[in-house]
Amino acid sequence: MAEGYEQHQRAIVKRLKDRGRYDYGTMHKIIDDTPVLHVSFPPDSDDEFSAMLPMLGCTGSFNPNETPKEQPYVSPGSFPEEDSTPEEDLTSGPRDIYLHGHAASRLFKRPEDERIPVTIAATTMQGIVLSLTPFHNSCNYASAVVMGYASVVTSESERLYALTRITDNLVTGRWDRSRNPPTKAEMTSTGVLRVEVVSASAKVRVGGPSDDRKDLKNEDVVGNVWTGFVPTYTFYGEPVPSSYNKVESVPQYMRSWIENENRKGEQAAADAIAQAKK
Amino acid sequence: MAEGYEQHQRAIVKRLKDRGRYDYGTMHKIIDDTPVLHVSFPPDSDDEFSAMLPMLGCTGSFNPNETPKEQPYVSPGSFPEEDSTPEEDLTSGPRDIYLHGHAASRLFKRPEDERIPVTIAATTMQGIVLSLTPFHNSCNYASAVVMGYASVVTSESERLYALTRITDNLVTGRWDRSRNPPTKAEMTSTGVLRVEVVSASAKVRVGGPSDDRKDLKNEDVVGNVWTGFVPTYTFYGEPVPSSYNKVESVPQYMRSWIENENRKGEQAAADAIAQAKK
Repeated sequence: MAEGYEQHQRAIVKRLKDRGRYDYGTMHKIIDDTPVLHVSFPPDSDDEFSAMLPMLGCTGSFNPNETPKEQPYVSPGSFPEEDSTPEEDLTSGPRDIYLHGHAASRLFKRPEDERIPVTIAATTMQGIVLSLTPFHNSCNYASAVVMGYASVVTSESERLYALTRITDNLVTGRWDRSRNPPTKAEMTSTGVLRVEVVSASAKVRVGGPSDDRKDLKNEDVVGNVWTGFVPTYTFYGEPVPSSYNKVESVPQYMRSWIENENRKGEQAAADAIAQAKK
Repeated sequence: MAEGYEQHQRAIVKRLKDRGRYDYGTMHKIIDDTPVLHVSFPPDSDDEFSAMLPMLGCTGSFNPNETPKEQPYVSPGSFPEEDSTPEEDLTSGPRDIYLHGHAASRLFKRPEDERIPVTIAATTMQGIVLSLTPFHNSCNYASAVVMGYASVVTSESERLYALTRITDNLVTGRWDRSRNPPTKAEMTSTGVLRVEVVSASAKVRVGGPSDDRKDLKNEDVVGNVWTGFVPTYTFYGEPVPSSYNKVESVPQYMRSWIENENRKGEQAAADAIAQAKK
């Protein structure tokens, strides 16, 4: 079994245990594939409802020795058209989750040393699965739920690492190819949270519909109800320039990123279907 | 202003107030457009992390006088190829949210009269917005966060309504065109929760990138950094039959549903972009 997060009671997949996944690779991939994460935290003392916020974020592993304290201005035109930065290794160990928001939002106004218990959910969908009866319909999906302690990141080099990583996770190669370094005002207005993962679990549903023997023998049902899969994935379309864009053609690193996202999505949907045929 | 949910302090969009939406139509549409919802509830007394579950569900408005107590078996082949059921009206008043899961999962094992405070999040994404500097990058997205009391539905006719609605919300016209009525075993093994909404808010981000005047005047930046939108939406692909499918061609109601989902997604992405040009 691949290495992964501790299986704490609160985070164990109790029903349909074969859908449970705890390995680092699966968990980190689901989170990084989901641009908008849902972040939940316990209610204020005078309320009974957990709070929930949609936030941009991704996994990260900060090494202070590898990240420069400061970045000089480098022309965004001096980087090659095609990005070739190696992808981060998501499988070899635990990672933190970095969340990004406006410094004025309520999560960033907590005291610096406070550790906020948060629960983060991310789900990607690979298809709709249709059976003879509505009760066996399902979705092929991959869902991660991660619990950990969030704290406000104050180190400038770690904040720079997190923001670079969130930007490049959203659009491969974008950080270098846009205006850097950030201004002082930008850094001040941007809040970064680091979530140290305490427990985590993922559920992954793949494969086809399953139906009861009785329905499979019923000719009126089998002869009239279409069963199978409708693949789904997030489609990235043709870029549309802003009113002030001056770069005539869409740069190659963006073309590659879009192609790659669409290929990955299509492939994941197909892989989930392929597992029905084993 | 369109009619909508009460603006409780806990659910008010405090920052970027112009993104806040409270009207019924916006809220219900986001939830119904999201197949997998994230449902959060407060931690058990011995834990500090909110629980979170991915669940299938959608909005609904049950009227006991309109729903038959029992359904007879009707051949799924006797319904027209094209579905023409009118869509439910999402704008005219508050609606409940129905969640569906296996009866053995922890949320359904609560006492019948318990009202569980839950928070439900749904997010759809309409595109990636790219500015000159990473700090102004954004997503066009629509996100709903709803708080309410969940209770287990025991009335058979309400359970039937909820399951019909969840099925048809996932795949338009599917309920009638698959095997019905449910068996006793199916009804027993399926849990349905009704969430009465107490407060709700949505955030909707549309439009283009915005950049600082200083960057807009910097020729090296403007001349080298592509700015604009990459539209995104959930793409529904070509259906793939199951190993036991006997219906030769994909039925028309499914073709219409898939076309409609793709057109809606594409249109929403384009609408979000169009608002930059005003």
